[in-house]
Amino acid sequence: MPRTVGFIGLGIMGFSMARRLIEAGHKVAVYNRTASKAEPLVALGARPAATPRAAAEGNEIVISIVTDSPDVEEVLLGKDGAVHSAAKGALFIDMSTIAPETARRAGQALAAKGIAFLDAPVTGGDVGAREGTLSILVGGGRTDLERARELFDVLGKRITHCGPQGAGQTVKACNQILCALNMMGICEALHLARLSGIAPALVVEALTPGAGGSWALDKLGSRIARGDFAPGFMVDLIQKDLRIVQDAAKRLGLSLEGTTLAQQYFGENQQSGEGRLGTQAMFKVLERAIGKK
Amino acid sequence: MPRTVGFIGLGIMGFSMARRLIEAGHKVAVYNRTASKAEPLVALGARPAATPRAAAEGNEIVISIVTDSPDVEEVLLGKDGAVHSAAKGALFIDMSTIAPETARRAGQALAAKGIAFLDAPVTGGDVGAREGTLSILVGGGRTDLERARELFDVLGKRITHCGPQGAGQTVKACNQILCALNMMGICEALHLARLSGIAPALVVEALTPGAGGSWALDKLGSRIARGDFAPGFMVDLIQKDLRIVQDAAKRLGLSLEGTTLAQQYFGENQQSGEGRLGTQAMFKVLERAIGKK
Repeated sequence: MPRTVGFIGLGIMGFSMARRLIEAGHKVAVYNRTASKAEPLVALGARPAATPRAAAEGNEIVISIVTDSPDVEEVLLGKDGAVHSAAKGALFIDMSTIAPETARRAGQALAAKGIAFLDAPVTGGDVGAREGTLSILVGGGRTDLERARELFDVLGKRITHCGPQGAGQTVKACNQILCALNMMGICEALHLARLSGIAPALVVEALTPGAGGSWALDKLGSRIARGDFAPGFMVDLIQKDLRIVQDAAKRLGLSLEGTTLAQQYFGENQQSGEGRLGTQAMFKVLERAIGKK
Repeated sequence: MPRTVGFIGLGIMGFSMARRLIEAGHKVAVYNRTASKAEPLVALGARPAATPRAAAEGNEIVISIVTDSPDVEEVLLGKDGAVHSAAKGALFIDMSTIAPETARRAGQALAAKGIAFLDAPVTGGDVGAREGTLSILVGGGRTDLERARELFDVLGKRITHCGPQGAGQTVKACNQILCALNMMGICEALHLARLSGIAPALVVEALTPGAGGSWALDKLGSRIARGDFAPGFMVDLIQKDLRIVQDAAKRLGLSLEGTTLAQQYFGENQQSGEGRLGTQAMFKVLERAIGKK
């Protein structure tokens, strides 16, 4: 059944996700800060909207996927936010990666207006967004998840109900810890190999199928071996996510020393102008550390 | 063609490996410090040997898999070592995990006696040893590897020539770095989840197929979720291996800060009497750190 959807945020992820919804036959209104990004979607039948409020107008579902916690609060709850125009009883689904606490707060603010809310961050990258193979990590009520399931099925292939509002963001935070520390292991291992005269490509191939193996070794270790530091997933974005991780950990009295060390490495990337490279550029930080000796 | 093999070291790994060679029809002489461990193999047709020297007597191939670098030097080169009795032109294959430097030194000492040497540490654990599905990481000459291939094929399914003598050990060291840091990520992520009220099992299931996924998350994360801290691979042994890693790194002027942090965590396991638990017991260290606050 075609649904009417307001879609806010047409970055790399959001653009492909909105396109999939349009191509699946849903009626989608699109908003993006840089309006020109909406044009290809308008050509496919989307209704262009000048504000989040305009995108939400008359729609039963609003999906947002923007960069950071303040962006989410602005597009949903701000002056031109979706909350002011959505139908009573609408469902808002935020698929950004933001703080669990912000997700809970947004959920409460929306509930006061009679609007349901799910946090539903995703993993699976630009390829997953294009191909509809994302993992979707959902926090919120089960009945709200069921209301969204038809749309989620267009966007992802693995939909996990993680718990109440905020729980999707918490599980996403866990994922970012894993990505950061798996990368640290890869960088340390490949440097040990390289300085010992062993090609990183050999190590990646030999160890990927075994107990040291990971998605990151397979996909990103092989990029390091080729000298390919293009993103995938940008250093600046994982740093944003690791700040979210640490804020959540701090609230819980949890000290994450490995994550802190990864942030320091990625921080050195940023100081060296490498924030827009892929996370595998952590390899360059260790390379420079060796060079200094 | 049946080969005559001296086999030194019948620990969890060595026992299963020797048994596979016997069952494949090779003539195997077995030595173990605790002699009783050889009995089931003798029942299968192995010749028992009271010393490494006796195990090597008249054999064209000698395989050793013992705990640490000094053990390898003793069983191969010591007073009762295999070097004193092996046929001229024999091939020694050390499958222990030891320092790359020790492997190179052993190779040189053996070359002086006309004996060829491969370092060939393995990954794949007790299950891989039983089922003949180990990954074998080989350092040494290619022709020596070809001499050993018939035996390697009985023991493993993936045989990688890593480079000259010592290179197998270096790649194994890389593997142990990956195992240690993947585990650190898992422990930090699962604690964030648990303290947030989300079951670790849910996180393992949701994130294993994605960009944060790893062998360790799948196999050991699920053990943590079940409260199962039995080894697998023991804390005491990964600590031995990480010392090898750091010694190798130090020789190369390489600082491995993530690995150092993992050693500190595992060190706290050892201080708490958890050295003989599996590496996933690192989770307990973080648990105690939270409890202290």
